[in-house]
Amino acid sequence: MLFENIRFLDTTLRDGEQTPGVALTTEDKVSIAQKLDELGIDIIEAGSAITSEGERESIKAITAENINAEICSYCRIKNSDVDYALECDVDSIHLVVPVSDLHITAKLKKDRDEVRQIASEVTEYAKDHGLIVELSGEDASRADHEFLKSLYSDGISAGADRLCYCDTVGMLIPEKTREIFSDMSSSLDAPLSVHCHDDFGLAVANSVAAINAGARECHMTVNGIGERAGNTSLEEVIMILEWLYNYDTGIKLEELYKTSRTVSRLTGLPVSANKALVGENAFTHEAGIHVHGLLANTSTYEPLKPETIGRERKIVMGKHAGKSSLKLALKELGLEVDESQLDEILSRVKVLADKGKRVSDADIQSIAETVLEIYREPKVKLEELTVVSGNTVTPTASTKLNVNGQDIVEAGVGNGPVDAAIQGVRKAISGVADIQLQEYHVDAITGGTDALVEVLVKLSKDGKIITSRGARTDIIMASVEAVLNGINYLLDE
Amino acid sequence: MLFENIRFLDTTLRDGEQTPGVALTTEDKVSIAQKLDELGIDIIEAGSAITSEGERESIKAITAENINAEICSYCRIKNSDVDYALECDVDSIHLVVPVSDLHITAKLKKDRDEVRQIASEVTEYAKDHGLIVELSGEDASRADHEFLKSLYSDGISAGADRLCYCDTVGMLIPEKTREIFSDMSSSLDAPLSVHCHDDFGLAVANSVAAINAGARECHMTVNGIGERAGNTSLEEVIMILEWLYNYDTGIKLEELYKTSRTVSRLTGLPVSANKALVGENAFTHEAGIHVHGLLANTSTYEPLKPETIGRERKIVMGKHAGKSSLKLALKELGLEVDESQLDEILSRVKVLADKGKRVSDADIQSIAETVLEIYREPKVKLEELTVVSGNTVTPTASTKLNVNGQDIVEAGVGNGPVDAAIQGVRKAISGVADIQLQEYHVDAITGGTDALVEVLVKLSKDGKIITSRGARTDIIMASVEAVLNGINYLLDE
Repeated sequence: MLFENIRFLDTTLRDGEQTPGVALTTEDKVSIAQKLDELGIDIIEAGSAITSEGERESIKAITAENINAEICSYCRIKNSDVDYALECDVDSIHLVVPVSDLHITAKLKKDRDEVRQIASEVTEYAKDHGLIVELSGEDASRADHEFLKSLYSDGISAGADRLCYCDTVGMLIPEKTREIFSDMSSSLDAPLSVHCHDDFGLAVANSVAAINAGARECHMTVNGIGERAGNTSLEEVIMILEWLYNYDTGIKLEELYKTSRTVSRLTGLPVSANKALVGENAFTHEAGIHVHGLLANTSTYEPLKPETIGRERKIVMGKHAGKSSLKLALKELGLEVDESQLDEILSRVKVLADKGKRVSDADIQSIAETVLEIYREPKVKLEELTVVSGNTVTPTASTKLNVNGQDIVEAGVGNGPVDAAIQGVRKAISGVADIQLQEYHVDAITGGTDALVEVLVKLSKDGKIITSRGARTDIIMASVEAVLNGINYLLDE
Repeated sequence: MLFENIRFLDTTLRDGEQTPGVALTTEDKVSIAQKLDELGIDIIEAGSAITSEGERESIKAITAENINAEICSYCRIKNSDVDYALECDVDSIHLVVPVSDLHITAKLKKDRDEVRQIASEVTEYAKDHGLIVELSGEDASRADHEFLKSLYSDGISAGADRLCYCDTVGMLIPEKTREIFSDMSSSLDAPLSVHCHDDFGLAVANSVAAINAGARECHMTVNGIGERAGNTSLEEVIMILEWLYNYDTGIKLEELYKTSRTVSRLTGLPVSANKALVGENAFTHEAGIHVHGLLANTSTYEPLKPETIGRERKIVMGKHAGKSSLKLALKELGLEVDESQLDEILSRVKVLADKGKRVSDADIQSIAETVLEIYREPKVKLEELTVVSGNTVTPTASTKLNVNGQDIVEAGVGNGPVDAAIQGVRKAISGVADIQLQEYHVDAITGGTDALVEVLVKLSKDGKIITSRGARTDIIMASVEAVLNGINYLLDE
């Protein structure tokens, strides 16, 4: 074991919330704090008490909860900031001191000695009021290292409990980080903490390098959200320590994915499909060759089992589909094929994919049924659809569906014409099956108002989830087409 | 200088295209290859010739172009794969050999000696046919290191030009990567190449560690796209080498952002807002304190100037807005304010933000104009809009606009309800001004059919181009709102 007793500070509610466009309500913040506590995070930076009345309400709501984690507020080196933190009843403050000459002169318009002195005074003030103080050097990676260490030393004398080193614009590299933390951990008598930003994509690697070189605490945000390129990703650091260093973090790993989803939903910040561990594709497999290996042994193309972090494996079709993955997909559809039929289906799937089209579950079924000469009368057909909307009418749709040979007329209203049309369709089939619309996705539309609109929907029935597609220049018709394709697929089961 | 003559292989068209759901047309692939060549990439892995007829057409189209970069095809250790690559007239092959026992037994159902022998035979076959051969160990990071080196040595004897080490499931850590590449570069007499995956978020750090320890070539994809968690991000590696190691990569840095946008658009894979360097927020600033420092000196909160990679800085308002950033935003809108007006505007912006709302430029303008008691009568107002569409009607819109105090009624038909509504609006204002719709864009819609739809339009009048925005749950109303906002802006000039 290279290291032990590492503590984790999550700053999703402070650095994460500073992401442009993000503003969380008090309710949202309490939910996130509870989730982080459940996960086993040691310290939660709940916000910056000085910011606004709304911010203080949120911090107070969090400290009022029954949470095990230490609750921390960000503070500048002003006693008034500390007073606001005290008003919110936090356990600790993350006391941030600009330490590079650039920050000291251009931002604070002070000099080194003044800053060092004020940092110590505010530390003492906070300690006198019973707070745990984490004294933090902002832009430390561009500061004079000896000045920084003298500021930290004075801070320790003033009572600082921990020292944090901030790579504020993300310019560290792992080997430099190691050097710095080795030096600091041998010369400063307080636990060290590391706070990284991801401007060059190295936040996680630098944080782990710091831990390797003596840091005892790591600052992180869920999904790596934060200003500019964001901060150190919580889930990546935790899983690197657990999986690649075999270190027991004490974090409930099986809750990591759920935590990621909660934060994405509440902040409105989507997680990129290829984000390590928590992205939609992280445990999704398409390519034919790979799925072949994967079926033989899941570890061939997976570094760890998705269940470890509370996820599931997903196998999808596409242009790289090989025979083994296609056979598996057909089996799931209940279709038995011989070798020549499999070849024919595969070649047709590839023709579709070579046109640049996504291949949905419904596409594969329809290709397979054509090859196998299975004709299924669609159970649900669209007979009539009329939608009226405008600035002074409630968007309204009338739909006539033929369901199992019988015409059913329904009307739907909605927040917009698409919503109205889909409400109408769902009402009309509600007597036959309980089908839920899990997800509605429209690819970005670019070009003119007459561009092709591609709609992908995810529908579920009795726990089974499938995807289907519609593509038209008319967004309403594309949406209805996608939903009806999916309904017919689900009713065929 | 720690290293020199590093070459860059881009595999966006092979590893990148293996992202589930992505399928590029031949045209798309040629565009990307041209962009990579313009950027100065040394080697372009254009695809895997064996995959399909469509894939070969694309590779042939790329080799037929006047491209400086070496064009490469992925091959398995089969002579038939090499034959298909030759048919496509590529310069080189990336010959991938499964080398871990897991891959050798579970996937290939062979043993080590067989694999080593076949690898050499196929290398010889390819060399006999005039190809450059990059012999690549798949899952090398889980292979027996001595076996791997013996396979590489045999490959060199068989004529392999370069050796690639693949961390197929992304399990390397930087310190281990250094050890491995130090050992290999001192014991193997051929240039080494590194190919990383991002399953734990360390692909970039590991690639840079390999280069530091002797690798002479680095595999990457634009935006880090690829299967699962994706591959090494091209833009991150390039900028780390340039900015943090002061190494001249020879890449046209000012084209990096454009390249990222092209790949995102053609693959349909959005780039996360906080992606280093190329994400929407990478050079966006919101927080009040930070913008204050930033205005004094842009490097306080920026590791490099956005122009370096062909981008621009963006300052946005939000709940953390401070006086200095607000004042700047108002100045850009041509509004002069005194101190008490500034305080009032700021407090209203914060009230809006505390409700969890994003604050747009238009919101600020409207708040400021209210505080300053400026009232602008919009020249064009929507009086009535009614749209009818469905499966058996031509989408039709009737619009009544009040233009300069006079009601104008028009009707429009279109390919869909949005198209019809916009045609109606354009007809109605055609007598007042010649306004062209240059571009119509809808952000991807995700969630339910009642999700907020954001429409951005680009309009022009007499050579002046502006953008405006509409956001509603109703896509037709959002589109009309965006167009009318833009028209009023253009008519106000």
